[in-house]
Amino acid sequence: MTTEQFPVNRALAIIGGKWRPQLYCTLEDGPKRFLELQRAIPGISRKVLTDQLKELERLGMVERIEFDEAVLHVEYRLTDAAYTLQPAMKGLCAWGEGN
Amino acid sequence: MTTEQFPVNRALAIIGGKWRPQLYCTLEDGPKRFLELQRAIPGISRKVLTDQLKELERLGMVERIEFDEAVLHVEYRLTDAAYTLQPAMKGLCAWGEGN
Repeated sequence: MTTEQFPVNRALAIIGGKWRPQLYCTLEDGPKRFLELQRAIPGISRKVLTDQLKELERLGMVERIEFDEAVLHVEYRLTDAAYTLQPAMKGLCAWGEGN
Repeated sequence: MTTEQFPVNRALAIIGGKWRPQLYCTLEDGPKRFLELQRAIPGISRKVLTDQLKELERLGMVERIEFDEAVLHVEYRLTDAAYTLQPAMKGLCAWGEGN
């Protein structure tokens, strides 16, 4: 098996890295606007957040919802597929707190 | 909270990356010799494996066991602390297989 074929590596290729775990944990408790996400994740720039959200959308982990209002109102939410990762992420979170 | 303070990031700083998830999964079912580890992880060089094992030892995730035999016999095993991460890693593994 090559590195990428190891299931854990496939999961971490999608949800690992510096920003995605935080994005995941921030979106876990419900849809958020762009600025809410930016405020919740210290040090993330507008460009990096934009790129990460686009990539997570491409990977089927995040959904971009546009609301039909006078002013453009967009929110981001985790997809159902992303929520199936929640037990593992909660496990990592709990472990990270204890270690 | 800075990036490093996010619990998930702390966990992934220890067990994330290209080689460590595979090292973890390979050691999960019991102690292994160096060559066994090298054979089980495609593409890992002797030097990278040596460095990763040293770092995991430093982090308290792996234990190096020397056997008192005529010929030097060394094995590596996960520590008890490392095994507490098993549910989360199994969750990532299962998710990686399904996605």
